[in-house]
Amino acid sequence: MSNNKLISDLKRNSTCVLESIEERYAYAQDASNSRNITCIPDAVVFVETIEQVQNVVKLANKYKTPIICRGAGTNVVGSCVAENGGIILNFSKMNKIIEISPDNMTAIVEPGVILGDFQKEVDKLGLFYPPDPSNLAVSTIGGSIAQSSGGAKSFKYGTTKDYVIDLKVVTADGSILQTGANTIKNATGYNLNTLFVGSEGTLGIIVEATLKLIPKPESKKVFMAYFDTVKDAVLAVNSLIDQKIYPATIDFMDKNAIQTVENFYPANLLTDKEAALIIEIDGFECSMDYQENLITCVLKNCKASAIQASHNDDEYNKIWMARRSSMAACTKIKPNVTTDDVIVPRKNLEKLVLGIREICQKHNLEVCMIGHIGDGSIHPQIPIDYNDENEYKRYKLAKSEIYDLTIKLGGLLSGEHGIGIEKRDYIGKVINSVALDYMREIKKTFDPNNILNPYKIF
Amino acid sequence: MSNNKLISDLKRNSTCVLESIEERYAYAQDASNSRNITCIPDAVVFVETIEQVQNVVKLANKYKTPIICRGAGTNVVGSCVAENGGIILNFSKMNKIIEISPDNMTAIVEPGVILGDFQKEVDKLGLFYPPDPSNLAVSTIGGSIAQSSGGAKSFKYGTTKDYVIDLKVVTADGSILQTGANTIKNATGYNLNTLFVGSEGTLGIIVEATLKLIPKPESKKVFMAYFDTVKDAVLAVNSLIDQKIYPATIDFMDKNAIQTVENFYPANLLTDKEAALIIEIDGFECSMDYQENLITCVLKNCKASAIQASHNDDEYNKIWMARRSSMAACTKIKPNVTTDDVIVPRKNLEKLVLGIREICQKHNLEVCMIGHIGDGSIHPQIPIDYNDENEYKRYKLAKSEIYDLTIKLGGLLSGEHGIGIEKRDYIGKVINSVALDYMREIKKTFDPNNILNPYKIF
Repeated sequence: MSNNKLISDLKRNSTCVLESIEERYAYAQDASNSRNITCIPDAVVFVETIEQVQNVVKLANKYKTPIICRGAGTNVVGSCVAENGGIILNFSKMNKIIEISPDNMTAIVEPGVILGDFQKEVDKLGLFYPPDPSNLAVSTIGGSIAQSSGGAKSFKYGTTKDYVIDLKVVTADGSILQTGANTIKNATGYNLNTLFVGSEGTLGIIVEATLKLIPKPESKKVFMAYFDTVKDAVLAVNSLIDQKIYPATIDFMDKNAIQTVENFYPANLLTDKEAALIIEIDGFECSMDYQENLITCVLKNCKASAIQASHNDDEYNKIWMARRSSMAACTKIKPNVTTDDVIVPRKNLEKLVLGIREICQKHNLEVCMIGHIGDGSIHPQIPIDYNDENEYKRYKLAKSEIYDLTIKLGGLLSGEHGIGIEKRDYIGKVINSVALDYMREIKKTFDPNNILNPYKIF
Repeated sequence: MSNNKLISDLKRNSTCVLESIEERYAYAQDASNSRNITCIPDAVVFVETIEQVQNVVKLANKYKTPIICRGAGTNVVGSCVAENGGIILNFSKMNKIIEISPDNMTAIVEPGVILGDFQKEVDKLGLFYPPDPSNLAVSTIGGSIAQSSGGAKSFKYGTTKDYVIDLKVVTADGSILQTGANTIKNATGYNLNTLFVGSEGTLGIIVEATLKLIPKPESKKVFMAYFDTVKDAVLAVNSLIDQKIYPATIDFMDKNAIQTVENFYPANLLTDKEAALIIEIDGFECSMDYQENLITCVLKNCKASAIQASHNDDEYNKIWMARRSSMAACTKIKPNVTTDDVIVPRKNLEKLVLGIREICQKHNLEVCMIGHIGDGSIHPQIPIDYNDENEYKRYKLAKSEIYDLTIKLGGLLSGEHGIGIEKRDYIGKVINSVALDYMREIKKTFDPNNILNPYKIF
């Protein structure tokens, strides 16, 4: 490929193109921080308009070079790195909230809008956009759509796919595809909305999204319930579900996670406990005491040995800051942190959580386990040193065994992070070959020249 | 095609094959009751196992004959008629609830399970499956997945697509495709679940579905709020949304619908009112009075001239029976009833509702308007006599004008019924051509020989 020609063509289209090796190197990784992922792109282009995106697609076709979309680069599976070179399409400047309509309970946004900022704007109008991945303070809405992000509130409110009602997409040939409309329901042809959600930039380039909003709950409160064994904590999840209580969140931290987080961000967590559940309730103010009593009663029956509750916004935010800082906190243990995102049927949670512990112990690895346990979703965060060859080998073995266990328990490799590069070698183990063949055919249909984030997922 | 050979091959596979003209004629229509739809299939096959379905697919390929899946035939857009001949695959005997797991809050069902029966079984376990199309007493889960059914509770709880987490599908070549897993979240490859939901049997044959359940709300109550003008009723919807109240349902009936229903099924509806909203609230018992007061206050401020509330199960069921019988009631006016399913952004509701009235008045047609107005979804039910050529012509003109109005208001042709035969001539008006081309390509990918419900949707 003639890089110079590509660069000069790109510069004619966009005022901001990074071409020096130092600048491009900054885009060689994402938050997956995998030892094997350092992929320097040929160019980084900041786009600000749909037309600019269309022009980059035309150039990518002309030069037969890949396009990899990037929001904030918080992806943890290598979905937004330029594994085979190519153009990083940086959306951080295409970040306007075009409309928030209280009448309609919908919003229209550009892909580079920061998710947390968007939630704050929506909140000011008494509305609520629930998807809340832990990195929402920096991650973008475009990225959350590409990866089908969930978050702590998905137990009650679902994930990103449940809130996307329309997408404007630049296709592999530079056309504009519209997937839906600004309507809450849609039974007009195939559902292309959710085909794009979670497609990791491999089928088209999302340049605008219309999102469903819901009314903001009047009140909310969060509890930390501590347990003396991991097993008790997991059994409490089953009891909460069994009692038909419907909190917004049922999250989990094991002892390692609690201690690591408390060292990093002191929040008065009880570091001598083996496990904790983070339970958020919300709803009408008049129901809060009732919900609290009900949950406290179930938790105590399930051997919770201590319960902390938020009594104001500060305490509420402190607990969530602690929970959300776990990945950052793990970097204090070892230079590198790997995270994962396995999910099983809820009835198999106990086997998953105890099994992951056992696998890590066997391979002499530390693990901080957090996760949206109410969904059956666990994020084992394993701090390691990539320069330690032996430890890295043990980590790779453990990772493979965790996947085997997950599959044995009827689960999937990803509930909300995606597949990217990190898990694609394992996807054939979990998705049936017929489904996988059709997915590959869909990819070919939308991207016949394989220029859109090639070789990701498969 | 050699019909005799096909029939004898089908009989070797299934114990129940209908071949006489009288029996096949019974499957020549569905509930769309369209004047133009009378399509006698070549055979009707009752399947009971996945293997039988696979065998029928092999025979369909051998004889190059279409397969049209049918549950209860309640479809209102002609999706389950054999327009080009072929085999009706009748799922009414493949109707087992395989599992309802309270631990997991999921259920596994065969496609022929009656939706209402399933909801009752789920309810006994303290769980809740929200999708509730008006015909749920007879319609099947397979059909509701094929058509992406919604219902009255979609305002708060979403539609069928939000509850399907895994499908077992027999593909056009007789293979078994699995779309997901028994997990609540899934970011493992493309979302094939929701690609099949609403695909009207054109991409594959759903033979098993895994559904997400949620905890059953402790309490529920329904209100009928009456208004002296349609406009006031529509404005009240906007006010309810504006006040961030989140009822389970905000449904609508106009004067014609109220009177027609009350004549058919006396439920003490106030027949002198111009319009009514049916509002269901649910949640914790302790929040019910608060919600009721809040809603009553908003409704009164919005000029509701009377409010009826359910005080027990009988009154609750009576109101819903009345609302759900509107289509049956319309058959008392004229021999045929057409229904439709347009949806617009909520902010354009007033223009849609008043516009439809105007169009029908102009063409001298009666119209009973009901609909899930909180979603922006309206079902204009127009009773006509198909033998009256002039009336039929006027109806066709009105229908086309209603679609034009819907499109002008940024809406879609279907929120929850699908496209089938009835609306396929109009789909190009509302879905952008790029999206439509990709939909056609997806169809070719999954069904290269065009044997699965051919020519529906497009």
